[in-house]
Amino acid sequence: MEKTNLTRAFDSFDEQWSPRVAAELNGQAVKLAKVEGEFVWHQHEDADELFLVRSGELTIEFRDDPDVVLEEGELLVVPRGVEHRPVADEEAEILLFEPGETQNTGNVQDDELTQTERRDLA
Amino acid sequence: MEKTNLTRAFDSFDEQWSPRVAAELNGQAVKLAKVEGEFVWHQHEDADELFLVRSGELTIEFRDDPDVVLEEGELLVVPRGVEHRPVADEEAEILLFEPGETQNTGNVQDDELTQTERRDLA
Repeated sequence: MEKTNLTRAFDSFDEQWSPRVAAELNGQAVKLAKVEGEFVWHQHEDADELFLVRSGELTIEFRDDPDVVLEEGELLVVPRGVEHRPVADEEAEILLFEPGETQNTGNVQDDELTQTERRDLA
Repeated sequence: MEKTNLTRAFDSFDEQWSPRVAAELNGQAVKLAKVEGEFVWHQHEDADELFLVRSGELTIEFRDDPDVVLEEGELLVVPRGVEHRPVADEEAEILLFEPGETQNTGNVQDDELTQTERRDLA
């Protein structure tokens, strides 16, 4: 059985806002992403999404709730159907737990950041 | 929305081999556990289980495969139906990602370490 080392996994790619599948289980996926700047406002109609910050700082903005600032070692679940926008002033490394088929921009299908194909770790 | 700080969450309990639910999403749970010594050999018939080491070192032993040693920042998925035994020489802090209803000792229902009730973070 093959383990995954998060440091080496994050070192293996540079692209931002482009989650890599690091593990799959029970129909869910653990994805790794590097993020910087403002993502697109979006929501996932049928999927809760967990954010866990590995390094740096990530702000999750909400339309109707206060922003949540996640620092290293902090996690947040964004419930399905809740519009949100991840923002990072400097590059942050994050883990996502969500269904394997969840698309990064959710209901927004035509953004320049929309990821149309699954990407695995190299 | 409430974030969870992993350092504070692990500081909030001392009991070993007694996972605390830190988050729930899509029928799955993120659980935090402190572990030390040898756990019981067991398997989960219907659930894959992810181990992610937050601090320390965790060895996952298998009947038919080589042991996997997980250090800080390393993760492994143990597929459903695969008998395994977690072992830690010194206390380790780990995150588990698995269905919310998964019991810690799996098919072994009467071990002294079997956790019969869900436990949440304080």
